[in-house]
Amino acid sequence: MIQTAVLGYGTVGSGVVEVLETNKESIEKRAGEAIGIKYVLDLRDFPGNPVEDILVHDYEIILKDPEVQIIAEVMGGVEPAYTFTKRALEAGKSVCTSNKELVAEHGLELMELAKKKKVNYMFEASCGGGIPIIRALNSSLTADEIDRISGILNGTTNFILTEMAESGADFDAVLKQAQELGYAERNPEADVEGYDACRKIAILSSLAFGAHVKYRDIYTEGITKITAEDMKYAKELGMTIKLLADSKRDGERFSAMVCPVMLGKDSPLYSVNGVFNAVFVHGNVLGDAMFYGSGAGKLPTASAVAGDMVDCAKHLGKTVMMNWSNRELEQVDRKEVTHPFFVRIQGNREERLPEVLETFANSKVVTVPELTGEFGFVTECISEAEFEEKAAKLEGVLGRIRIRA
Amino acid sequence: MIQTAVLGYGTVGSGVVEVLETNKESIEKRAGEAIGIKYVLDLRDFPGNPVEDILVHDYEIILKDPEVQIIAEVMGGVEPAYTFTKRALEAGKSVCTSNKELVAEHGLELMELAKKKKVNYMFEASCGGGIPIIRALNSSLTADEIDRISGILNGTTNFILTEMAESGADFDAVLKQAQELGYAERNPEADVEGYDACRKIAILSSLAFGAHVKYRDIYTEGITKITAEDMKYAKELGMTIKLLADSKRDGERFSAMVCPVMLGKDSPLYSVNGVFNAVFVHGNVLGDAMFYGSGAGKLPTASAVAGDMVDCAKHLGKTVMMNWSNRELEQVDRKEVTHPFFVRIQGNREERLPEVLETFANSKVVTVPELTGEFGFVTECISEAEFEEKAAKLEGVLGRIRIRA
Repeated sequence: MIQTAVLGYGTVGSGVVEVLETNKESIEKRAGEAIGIKYVLDLRDFPGNPVEDILVHDYEIILKDPEVQIIAEVMGGVEPAYTFTKRALEAGKSVCTSNKELVAEHGLELMELAKKKKVNYMFEASCGGGIPIIRALNSSLTADEIDRISGILNGTTNFILTEMAESGADFDAVLKQAQELGYAERNPEADVEGYDACRKIAILSSLAFGAHVKYRDIYTEGITKITAEDMKYAKELGMTIKLLADSKRDGERFSAMVCPVMLGKDSPLYSVNGVFNAVFVHGNVLGDAMFYGSGAGKLPTASAVAGDMVDCAKHLGKTVMMNWSNRELEQVDRKEVTHPFFVRIQGNREERLPEVLETFANSKVVTVPELTGEFGFVTECISEAEFEEKAAKLEGVLGRIRIRA
Repeated sequence: MIQTAVLGYGTVGSGVVEVLETNKESIEKRAGEAIGIKYVLDLRDFPGNPVEDILVHDYEIILKDPEVQIIAEVMGGVEPAYTFTKRALEAGKSVCTSNKELVAEHGLELMELAKKKKVNYMFEASCGGGIPIIRALNSSLTADEIDRISGILNGTTNFILTEMAESGADFDAVLKQAQELGYAERNPEADVEGYDACRKIAILSSLAFGAHVKYRDIYTEGITKITAEDMKYAKELGMTIKLLADSKRDGERFSAMVCPVMLGKDSPLYSVNGVFNAVFVHGNVLGDAMFYGSGAGKLPTASAVAGDMVDCAKHLGKTVMMNWSNRELEQVDRKEVTHPFFVRIQGNREERLPEVLETFANSKVVTVPELTGEFGFVTECISEAEFEEKAAKLEGVLGRIRIRA
């Protein structure tokens, strides 16, 4: 039997314990050996809970036990997870995690440490919950040069945007509903401001491009300014609004952005609704591929952590190669990136149209019958710099959303 | 450098050569060593082609060369591919293939032989072209009990059905168009009769359920009887028609079927159009997941073969575990399987409705304004046996299509 420990008995941690217990037999078959949980580390006590007998409060016990070969770090946050992970790897134990903050911040360093110690640092659960995208990048799409990776990487915001599109309610009302349903946290900032999606696209880009993409360098815009009116215009255009994390590579340059976009029905991401996530990949020989699944939630995430534990068990003493290096790509200035923009503007359409067309040539007007005193238009494909310069000249701009083909 | 050989210089074979050349550098990085092609085996000559220098007609040369460690078998068909593969594995060489006929027929035996010889037999390209579904089943979803796997597994039929839905043309006209575009073969039987999808779902079910599912046992119905009228009714119902390969497991029993079905907009497979393929998986902890991509074509398939070659290079001397065993599951009798049916029937709706409702209680009528002298109805969810028995009582049944929720 291969012994393991679970750090953190929260939502994901209890899920990992549940998955390893529920699918014990098939996991043993696949790992080639039974996987046991010798310790669960948590500051709290859980009287009456089956984990009571294996619960410890002191990490040293786990570190010093040579029987423990694999550790699931599902605490979240950078500290103490970072210190715990480093010490585990230094002690020759493999670590599997769902902690995207830590992976985005120190993933490269921890992977290099794992390699030095001939163990593994795996983080399938950090991006896209149960969607097996990271192993696909590392082990399957290895004959491809990936030049684009993008997707809907945050279930909370996708639930909110889907609800807004379907019910016509505004952001605040739907956020409250999401919080009541447990789909959004009480402090929803990391999700709704796009920070969570930003960390995930930084991790995915690093693996896809074989470089080191820093999350702090990625322009990030959340969904808090998306209104019920925006949704009406999107519908009128036959489109929907999604929080898209998008990263493209062109030779030694890359550009990445997290922001709400309008997507048409031709996009495979158009019908990814609710708490589902999807990751779209383009490879130079593969062409287009997409991975879709539950992006969050206790069991899907735990399934990914447990899958990593099985992979660690199959690779004891050998580091599985990952294509994340310290090579840095040059980032394209956001201002150079081009797309069409949807713009909402105050005023009467007939009166203001000449001014709009003079500023944004060849724009297409869009109106929603029930919205009076304003109208919308879609610009040509222009750079962010050109858009900002021109939009500054127009009075009464109510909002703008980027459009993706 | 790790030396390899490619058996067969047809579409996929020339794609493999192209991929290994085009992405040489990134493949070397990922495999940990350069991958070279020492031989290409084909009966034909290719004067002037760059492979001319490494072309051989005699398989013995490859077999006897101890430098060749990995072989890509992309010949298709059972023989001589079966004999060639067996001899390669026996000689201690790993084999990667896109050959679904061979994998469906002898996959289990070849995998067992590979294990005995401490080499690998890999077949990512055999199902879903470039979609990395097989490695996901073997290496990622290892903490799950997969209870359902289904999908659109044949690009030719999906192209035909998409075209029929969009243009209103009938099967024969669209098949001809597909043949002209190179999306269908001159002898299209294996695709349009569902045989190709049947082999693929047998392979995927075997891996997902950890058992041995024989393709000959799977009920298979092609798309040749789907008419332009069927498409009109589907549209009226807000549905579309797809060739679905579907396999479900319930404990020690399974049921599998390949047949055209009507799918609603809620299905993630609804918007999988053209030559694209998609595989849907349900795991007991993962929940729903879907993999989408180019299902066929030279480069996507070659990308999958080359990805397997990289994996073989990373696992020289070690067999990667696959969860395909000789355990057999009991197959549920097709007659017991239940779903609603769409039925087209001759005659006047007012006149025949009482008779229809007496035979198929609680059916819902559907009519298409332009189709006179006939109408359609959707039955309750009933077993195949009950449907067949009742439908035999009604005169003038023009066709029936199963409906999936």
